[in-house]
Amino acid sequence: MIELDSGDAAAGVERARPSLRVAPAAVQAMERDLAIVIPCMNETRRVIEGVLSGIPHDCLIIVVSNSARRPVDRYEIEVQTVEQFCQLAERPAITIHQRDPGLAAAMKAAGATDLIDETGLLRPGKGEAMLVGLAVASLTGRRSLGYIDADNFVPGAVNEYCKAYAAALHLADSPYAMVRISWHSKPKLRDGRLFFSRRGRTSELTNQFLNQLIGEYCGFGTEVVATGNAGEHAFSLALGHTLRLASGFAVEPFEYLDMFEQFGGVFESAHPDVMERSVSVTQIETRNPHFHDNKGDEHVQDMRMQALNVLYHSPVCLPSVRSDILDFLVGQGELAPGAEPPRERIYPPVGTLALDRLHDVVTTEAHTLRQLVPDAPAESAALLHRPPAF
Amino acid sequence: MIELDSGDAAAGVERARPSLRVAPAAVQAMERDLAIVIPCMNETRRVIEGVLSGIPHDCLIIVVSNSARRPVDRYEIEVQTVEQFCQLAERPAITIHQRDPGLAAAMKAAGATDLIDETGLLRPGKGEAMLVGLAVASLTGRRSLGYIDADNFVPGAVNEYCKAYAAALHLADSPYAMVRISWHSKPKLRDGRLFFSRRGRTSELTNQFLNQLIGEYCGFGTEVVATGNAGEHAFSLALGHTLRLASGFAVEPFEYLDMFEQFGGVFESAHPDVMERSVSVTQIETRNPHFHDNKGDEHVQDMRMQALNVLYHSPVCLPSVRSDILDFLVGQGELAPGAEPPRERIYPPVGTLALDRLHDVVTTEAHTLRQLVPDAPAESAALLHRPPAF
Repeated sequence: MIELDSGDAAAGVERARPSLRVAPAAVQAMERDLAIVIPCMNETRRVIEGVLSGIPHDCLIIVVSNSARRPVDRYEIEVQTVEQFCQLAERPAITIHQRDPGLAAAMKAAGATDLIDETGLLRPGKGEAMLVGLAVASLTGRRSLGYIDADNFVPGAVNEYCKAYAAALHLADSPYAMVRISWHSKPKLRDGRLFFSRRGRTSELTNQFLNQLIGEYCGFGTEVVATGNAGEHAFSLALGHTLRLASGFAVEPFEYLDMFEQFGGVFESAHPDVMERSVSVTQIETRNPHFHDNKGDEHVQDMRMQALNVLYHSPVCLPSVRSDILDFLVGQGELAPGAEPPRERIYPPVGTLALDRLHDVVTTEAHTLRQLVPDAPAESAALLHRPPAF
Repeated sequence: MIELDSGDAAAGVERARPSLRVAPAAVQAMERDLAIVIPCMNETRRVIEGVLSGIPHDCLIIVVSNSARRPVDRYEIEVQTVEQFCQLAERPAITIHQRDPGLAAAMKAAGATDLIDETGLLRPGKGEAMLVGLAVASLTGRRSLGYIDADNFVPGAVNEYCKAYAAALHLADSPYAMVRISWHSKPKLRDGRLFFSRRGRTSELTNQFLNQLIGEYCGFGTEVVATGNAGEHAFSLALGHTLRLASGFAVEPFEYLDMFEQFGGVFESAHPDVMERSVSVTQIETRNPHFHDNKGDEHVQDMRMQALNVLYHSPVCLPSVRSDILDFLVGQGELAPGAEPPRERIYPPVGTLALDRLHDVVTTEAHTLRQLVPDAPAESAALLHRPPAF
């Protein structure tokens, strides 16, 4: 990202630029087709409000919450926050709780039985929240989807991510397109001042192994992957519907692996239509630093391990990379010598689900589902539509 | 600020909104008329680059630097940073050093002799840098000016400030318009985490006394002033040319006082044209928190005192406010009992300077002046134009 705002096309200045420039009208057109899914867990009202304010008006907000409902019903507070914001900004939004029994019933009816845990509810991971967001977005008529993590202190950064999604999806020369955000920096508190570190600890490790894998296939060492753990990413639903999402924090790195497996040319692809147009993946380094809540070391360790687990077990993974991952995990004391990393759950593509059935059950049985439409009475508000049966 | 981006007017959705909405085209039109002045002192390359990237493309960048030139010539580093950015973004910019002997000669020729100190150079304060920016902007043909402090870690916040300037100047119903930014919050490091405090220590004090003054005139206690120390503010040059700027950190609060003195109706105004249209002052609370460098306690103390000094000595100040200021300063140990606060320097309005002479001398003698125009050879680049003599 060179400039957050590269000027008004209508000014009629045509330039032979050393960089790509996307006219505001093109960005706006893409925003009207973009759903923004916010996986949310126990964030404060002020932080959520800030995130919402950064999402361009014409994007459709979808909040998928896994927040606590007891002793305080934090989901209700979130819904109120979204409602108040949307009333003021006169824009629509959808919210749903991940552990809503009606959502579990809807997912089961659609064929996604793996998503359900032993309690009969949806599994509580981040990958699962993203899958819900993708499925719900598929019922809205929007053709692209971007994810924004809810724990972001800087509305301007949220705004930049969305603008980057819209610009890159506009520029993509394939209908099967993905955009992944690489933060400019991630500020940390160190000795009473801010230190702007270039990469998070998880990203560094995930990227290193993904790059090693690509390097060994190509015969050239590479640092091409800078966004292995990018929570902030977007894709066209045409691509999104073919992707298998992984559980928990494995979800983001596994998107790369799934694209390598399905469309990398190593194995026969089940999607000749995608292969013909090829998949476009754009990585964008932002201007804004990423200020977010420090979720603690355990969280980081979980993310690191889950990324390496999916990489280890991917059929595209090469023996040398596999053995380096084992060495690393054993060296870190995360794995007993001779043991295998655990497998992460991999879900079937949303495109294979019965979305018509999902629609029917989620709109009737998921009582946490809110479809907020300004000026429309609650009972008649409808942002979700029944798609034709597959 | 409700949303950073309130959607595309071209979408044709007309709404009866509970809030004001400015169409992107109106914002862009205003940006083409807006010069952004960045007073800069010893910031790092990365921080400056971030600030530049947040300024909308169509605004004209003017950097007024008071950075050290020895042992390392930091001004040259700044110029390189601006040059590289502008080359990549294909946009123009102007830079000048506050302590350039040619600038002092130009200001003297224009009639601003008070600006010159005993060494024959321009005084090094912030108010003085802002005055230089205002004078230089007056030679560019732009009709509005906004200030952005250089010590901002969040490009998205810079972008929001500029958008707020453009939107509020567009909405103003007088040609004599000012916009002042109130930060959403100012994050501080406290016990190893971020605490988002609502107000800075200086602002709180300045606002309190300004509100007391207004309250005593009106007979109603008030909290109307939230931006007494707003470094981030903008005005139309029509207003800017009538304002007297104060030295150092007194500059921002004194703008309020000068408007009260000149246009408040307490004294006869020398500008019946302004009185007829009245002056529009808009305060905008941002969505973005203001992450900036902690300049230390001494800096804060300087700012607090200089604000109170100008308030104390203003002819609009009432005896009760004056006596409360004295009590406060004595209580803080900043003033001996019975003493008077020092006077801050107040400069004549830029509109009274001979801007044609300023132009002639600054473009020929100020060797730190750079007019960067993409694709134009350095010797023929000209962003400054000779205005007709007053």
